[in-house]
Amino acid sequence: MQVGLVGITGYAGMVLYQLLRQHSEVSGINLYDHKLTRNQPLNEVVPSFFTDQTPVQPYSDQAVMADNQMVFFATSAGVTSKLSQPYLDAKFPVIDLSGDLRLNDVDEYQRWYHKDSAPASDLQQAHYGLADFESAEDKTYVANPGCYATATLLGLAPLVQQDLIDLDSIIVDAKSGTSGAGKHPAASTHFTQANDNLQIYKPNQHQHIPEIVMTLKSWNKQVKAIQFMTTLIPITRGIMSTIYVKVKPGIDGAMIDQVYQDTYGHKPFVNYTGTQLPDIKQVVGTNNCNIGVVYNPVTQTVMVDSVIDNLLKGAAGQAVQNFNQMFKFEETSELELTPFLP
Amino acid sequence: MQVGLVGITGYAGMVLYQLLRQHSEVSGINLYDHKLTRNQPLNEVVPSFFTDQTPVQPYSDQAVMADNQMVFFATSAGVTSKLSQPYLDAKFPVIDLSGDLRLNDVDEYQRWYHKDSAPASDLQQAHYGLADFESAEDKTYVANPGCYATATLLGLAPLVQQDLIDLDSIIVDAKSGTSGAGKHPAASTHFTQANDNLQIYKPNQHQHIPEIVMTLKSWNKQVKAIQFMTTLIPITRGIMSTIYVKVKPGIDGAMIDQVYQDTYGHKPFVNYTGTQLPDIKQVVGTNNCNIGVVYNPVTQTVMVDSVIDNLLKGAAGQAVQNFNQMFKFEETSELELTPFLP
Amino acid sequence: MQVGLVGITGYAGMVLYQLLRQHSEVSGINLYDHKLTRNQPLNEVVPSFFTDQTPVQPYSDQAVMADNQMVFFATSAGVTSKLSQPYLDAKFPVIDLSGDLRLNDVDEYQRWYHKDSAPASDLQQAHYGLADFESAEDKTYVANPGCYATATLLGLAPLVQQDLIDLDSIIVDAKSGTSGAGKHPAASTHFTQANDNLQIYKPNQHQHIPEIVMTLKSWNKQVKAIQFMTTLIPITRGIMSTIYVKVKPGIDGAMIDQVYQDTYGHKPFVNYTGTQLPDIKQVVGTNNCNIGVVYNPVTQTVMVDSVIDNLLKGAAGQAVQNFNQMFKFEETSELELTPFLP
Amino acid sequence: MQVGLVGITGYAGMVLYQLLRQHSEVSGINLYDHKLTRNQPLNEVVPSFFTDQTPVQPYSDQAVMADNQMVFFATSAGVTSKLSQPYLDAKFPVIDLSGDLRLNDVDEYQRWYHKDSAPASDLQQAHYGLADFESAEDKTYVANPGCYATATLLGLAPLVQQDLIDLDSIIVDAKSGTSGAGKHPAASTHFTQANDNLQIYKPNQHQHIPEIVMTLKSWNKQVKAIQFMTTLIPITRGIMSTIYVKVKPGIDGAMIDQVYQDTYGHKPFVNYTGTQLPDIKQVVGTNNCNIGVVYNPVTQTVMVDSVIDNLLKGAAGQAVQNFNQMFKFEETSELELTPFLP
Repeated sequence: MQVGLVGITGYAGMVLYQLLRQHSEVSGINLYDHKLTRNQPLNEVVPSFFTDQTPVQPYSDQAVMADNQMVFFATSAGVTSKLSQPYLDAKFPVIDLSGDLRLNDVDEYQRWYHKDSAPASDLQQAHYGLADFESAEDKTYVANPGCYATATLLGLAPLVQQDLIDLDSIIVDAKSGTSGAGKHPAASTHFTQANDNLQIYKPNQHQHIPEIVMTLKSWNKQVKAIQFMTTLIPITRGIMSTIYVKVKPGIDGAMIDQVYQDTYGHKPFVNYTGTQLPDIKQVVGTNNCNIGVVYNPVTQTVMVDSVIDNLLKGAAGQAVQNFNQMFKFEETSELELTPFLP
Repeated sequence: MQVGLVGITGYAGMVLYQLLRQHSEVSGINLYDHKLTRNQPLNEVVPSFFTDQTPVQPYSDQAVMADNQMVFFATSAGVTSKLSQPYLDAKFPVIDLSGDLRLNDVDEYQRWYHKDSAPASDLQQAHYGLADFESAEDKTYVANPGCYATATLLGLAPLVQQDLIDLDSIIVDAKSGTSGAGKHPAASTHFTQANDNLQIYKPNQHQHIPEIVMTLKSWNKQVKAIQFMTTLIPITRGIMSTIYVKVKPGIDGAMIDQVYQDTYGHKPFVNYTGTQLPDIKQVVGTNNCNIGVVYNPVTQTVMVDSVIDNLLKGAAGQAVQNFNQMFKFEETSELELTPFLP
Repeated sequence: MQVGLVGITGYAGMVLYQLLRQHSEVSGINLYDHKLTRNQPLNEVVPSFFTDQTPVQPYSDQAVMADNQMVFFATSAGVTSKLSQPYLDAKFPVIDLSGDLRLNDVDEYQRWYHKDSAPASDLQQAHYGLADFESAEDKTYVANPGCYATATLLGLAPLVQQDLIDLDSIIVDAKSGTSGAGKHPAASTHFTQANDNLQIYKPNQHQHIPEIVMTLKSWNKQVKAIQFMTTLIPITRGIMSTIYVKVKPGIDGAMIDQVYQDTYGHKPFVNYTGTQLPDIKQVVGTNNCNIGVVYNPVTQTVMVDSVIDNLLKGAAGQAVQNFNQMFKFEETSELELTPFLP
Repeated sequence: MQVGLVGITGYAGMVLYQLLRQHSEVSGINLYDHKLTRNQPLNEVVPSFFTDQTPVQPYSDQAVMADNQMVFFATSAGVTSKLSQPYLDAKFPVIDLSGDLRLNDVDEYQRWYHKDSAPASDLQQAHYGLADFESAEDKTYVANPGCYATATLLGLAPLVQQDLIDLDSIIVDAKSGTSGAGKHPAASTHFTQANDNLQIYKPNQHQHIPEIVMTLKSWNKQVKAIQFMTTLIPITRGIMSTIYVKVKPGIDGAMIDQVYQDTYGHKPFVNYTGTQLPDIKQVVGTNNCNIGVVYNPVTQTVMVDSVIDNLLKGAAGQAVQNFNQMFKFEETSELELTPFLP
C-alpha cells in the first residue's frame, strides 16, 4: 500500500514516518511539505534524519490523490481546515493528526482555535477517531484525537460511560513534556527556562478541552463541562493526566475497580493497573495508555492516573492504529512496541 | 547569639546552616549529629562543604543547652519525638524542622508516621509555626511546618478563612522536586528512574495531610478532609501545589481576587500574582510563596497555583523566619533572598 | 532457536530481553537469575516489566545447557569469571556482556577489576567481540566489549590501523549517562546530586581502559597507553567519546577523511558523518555508532566525536550483533532500529 | 555610589543586577536598554523580575555619564565596539562584560567575532580583567573575561606560568550549560533537543579561543595555539573545563601539586582541591573557581578539572570582583556566596 504523509517536519510527522517505514502493509511513503516549491531530500528538510535522502515533495492534492491510496496529515492547526474539501468530495481516505476537524461545530472551533474553521459539512463527515472506543473501519476522514484528550478520555471513560460519578466534579490536572509544544523554539520551552521548572499554561483555555467535553457528552448526555489544567514538565516525551472525580452515593472502590477491568480487560493498548499507579516511563516508546486508579473513601474521590507517550498514543501511534482499523489490518500491526526503558 | 543545629547531614540542615552562617544576629553555630561518638570536621561528615572544618559534635541535650541559647533540629521523623521532653521541661527554645511535634494528637501521629509519638503533653505545648499566619514570638517549642503543608495552606488560607468555598471540594495535586525525598539514594530518586519521568507516590497517605487538615480546621471548623496527591518531578528543588476548589453560590472572581489581596497585601513573604500564574523558578532560592489564582465561572472552580522552594520556605527559610519572630529580630533578617535565576 | 539469558535484573539484561523477544530467529527465551531459589514471574523480579509473567528460573549451568542452544550473560563483574569453565569445556555457545573474560591476562584483570580472574586458559579461549571489526562466526565464547570501549575503539580505529597519528598522544574525554552506572541507587547517581551537575569519576582507573589498550595494540603494536577520563552527565542513555590525537607529520584533513570513509563506508552500524558532528540523540535507540571528525591544522590535532547508545551498541545491541554473526543470521536482524527522536 | 547597568535583559545583566542591589557600596542603580525609546518598568521588560518596577531607561552615553559614577555593560557582542569611545575619551569608568574590547588586535576580533571591531586605540586602552591575576585598580575600561576563558585560564595558569608543560600539547574539552548560550530561544537550546543530549558546537571556532591564547602568551611567550572544544550540556548553569597537557621531562605529580598550592593558596576565589575532583554543583551560586588536578605518570599527562558558575565567576561575579578592585572596596564584598546546594 502506498501512503502519503504531509508534514514531516513536525515531531508527530517524524515519529509517524518512523512507524510507517517499518509497517508491513506499507510498500512506499510519499512525503509532502507545504513550504517547498521543488523536491528536497529529507535529510536537508529535517537534519535529524541525517542519512535519509527520500525526496520531500511540494504539496498538491492532485499529486497526493494520484500517487497514494491514502494520506496522513501531520500539519499544524489551521492547515487541513482549508484542505479537507477535495478529499471528502473524492472520498479519498485521510487520517488527520491536527485538531482542525475534530470538533463538530464551526463556532466551537473558532472559539478555541482562534482560526477559521473547515466548512460545517466537512466537520460533520469527519470521524473523531478515539481508536480504543470506536473503530475507523469504513470511515473516510479520521480526525485523530489530541494527546491530552486521549489520556484524559481513556482515563475517564469507564466512570462516565457507567455513570458512576458526579459529572459536575471532573477535574483534570494534566502534565506534558515539551515535545507536546512542538518543534519551534519558544521562551517557555527554552532549556534554561523549562529545566528545573514547572509552568502552568493556557489555564481553562487549552484547545483539547472541547473535544474532551464533546466525547464525554457522546458517552453521557449529562456532562456539561470539565475543569482542565495543563502544566509543562521538564521531560521530553510523555503525558500524565491526573483526574479527580467525586463518586455518586453508594459507589465503592470495588465497583470502580470492576468497571475498569470490564472496560479495558480486552483492549490491546489500554492497561489497567489497579492501585499500582503507572509512571510515565512505563509507556514512553509505546502505543499504550496505562491507567491506575485509587479511590479515597474519606473524600469520596477517585483519582485516576492515566499516562501515554504524547507522540505515539497521543499522535502517530494512534494514527497508525486508526490506519490499521480503516484498512482492516491487524489492529496491533507495527504497534507492539516495548517501553523505552530504562 | 549562639545557636545549636542538630542534623547537618540532611538537605534541610545544610541549607539552614548556610542561612545561619550569614545571619547578623548569630554569633556562632554549634553543630551536632546523633551518629557521632567524637568530634569530626564538617567537610568529612558532609563532603559538599568541602573546605569547612567546623567540628560536628556528638549530640547530648546537656551539651546543647549548656553551650547555646536555642537549638534547631533538622532531624528525620522519629528523632525529636524521643528528645523533646528535657527541652520543654527546661523551657529551652527549640525550632524543630521535623514532623514529630506538628500534630496535636498521639494517635494521629502514629497513624500517619507509623512511629511512636512524643508524649501527648509535649504535643500540646508545641506551637505549629506557620510563620506567615501566627508569630512564634514567646513560644518555646516551634514545630516548623512541612514543605507540602506550607505551600498548600498558604494557597488555601484566604478561601478557607473567609469561608468562600465548598469545604468538601478541596483537591490538591502537589508536585515536588527530588530534594524533598531527602539525601538517601532510593529507587524512585535514582537519576535513571526519576529523569524523564513523573511518579505519583503515597496516594492519600502523605504524612503532611494531617497537619494541613488540622490547620484548616483551626481556620474553619467545618473542614473535614482533603483530597491530596503528591507527584515526584524531575527537578531538584521546588514545590508546586495546584489546588482546586468549588466556590459557594454567589462567589465570583472579583471577590476571590479581593480576599487574596487583603490577606497577602502586607505579608513580606507571600506574593499574590493574580491570574499571572507563577512558575517554580520564580521562588527557588527565596523564602517566598508565590500564589496565582484563576477562577473558572463555567465550572465554579478556583484553581490556585502556589509555589515555594521546598528547602527554604518549606524548611530552613521558614525556620529562620520563626527564629526571627521568636527572638523579635526583624522578620526578614537574612531572608531577603533573590530567586536563583536563570 | 531457544536462548538463555542470565541477569535480567540489570539494565543491559532488560534491553537485551526486549531485543530478543522480537528476534525472528529466537523461538523462546529462558530467563535465569542467581539470587533466586525458585521460579518467580518476571514482573515480580523487575516491576517495570509490569505485565510480563515469564518465569525467571534459578541459575544452574546444567539447566542452561540442557534447555537452550546458547546463553547470554548480562551479569555484573565477578560472576562469569567463576562460571565460564563448564561452558568452555562443553563448547557451549556463550555471549558474555560482562567484563570478566575481555582481557587476555589474569594480572591485568585483577589490577583493574580488583577481583579474582577467570582461569588464564578461559581468558585465552574467549573472543573479544568488537563486532564491526571481527566476526563472532565460529566462536564459542564471546566477550562483548564495554560501552566506553566500543565508542572509543570505533572512533580511533581508522587512525590507529592506518598509522596516521602519534600513538603517545591519544587523549579520550568520554561522557556517559547514568544508566551506564547500573541500576543500584548510589550517591553519585541520586537525582538531586546528578541533575544540573557534571561529575568526573575513576580518573585513570576506569576498567575499560585495559580492553581499549589491548585492542589498539592488536591493531598497532606501537601503542603503549592512553589518557582516558570519564564524566557522568545528567542524561539517562548515551555515551559521547571525544578523542584528541596529534597527527604524524605530513598527514592532512583530506587523508583523515579518506581513511574514515574507507573504513566505515560499508559497515552497517557505523556512520561516518565527516565534519557534521553527531549529537547523542542521533543514536539513542539504535545499534549505531556515529562518528564525526574535525582536523585542526593549527594544532595538528584531530578531534573525533564518537557517539553510541550505551545500552544498545554499548551492550545489548552489540550482543545481538555478535549473536547474528555467531549463528550466521543476517547481521542486521532485529537491529535496524530508528533513533528515539525527538 | 551610583552605578549604571546597560543590558538588563540578558542573563548576565539579570544576575549582575541581583548582586549590585545587595552591594553595600552601591547606593543606586540606573538601568538602561538600547531598544527602549521611553522608560519602562523592569518587570515589563524582564517578566521574571515580577514585582520590581524600577524604570529601565533608553540608553544615551550623556545620560549614563551624567547620572552615574561608573557603568557596567552586559550587552551582546557588537554593541560596545561602537560605544566605547566617549567613555574612554572621558576616562569614565566602564566594566564591559561583552567580548568587544577583550582582544588587543582589530584583525583578531574581526576574524573570531565576524563583526567590525572597536578602534585599535580603544582595544589598547582596555584592560583584560582576569581578576584573580591582575587587579583592575586604577583601570578605566575593564574588559571582563569570557566564561570559558576564565575557567580555562585559571586551570592552566600555574602550569603555563611556571613553564612545566609542553606548550604545544594543550587540549581543552570544555562543557557548558545552556545559560551560556543566552536568552534567545534557538534550535540547539530548545528543551526537546537539549535534554538527554550532548552537542558539540563551534569546533575550533569559539570566540573565547583568542582571549585564552592572548593571555597564555602574556604568561609564557612560547605559547602558540590551543586545541579547544565546547560541548553543550543539559544543565542550566555551570562550566567544566577539562584540560589535558603533557608535562616536560622531569616534572612529577608532587611538583605540579606544589605550584597549584603556591599559586592559589591565598586567592579568595580559587580553591585548589588536589586530586579531589570538583563537580559543577560545588561552585554554582558562587564566584569561585574550583580546580582539581590528577597527574598520570603512565602518559605523562596532567588532567585539570576547572569548574565555575558561568554567570557568576564567568560573568557578573567577576564583574563585581573587578568593580571591587577598581574602586578599592574589599575584594570579596558581596561575593562571599555559598554554593546553591543541593
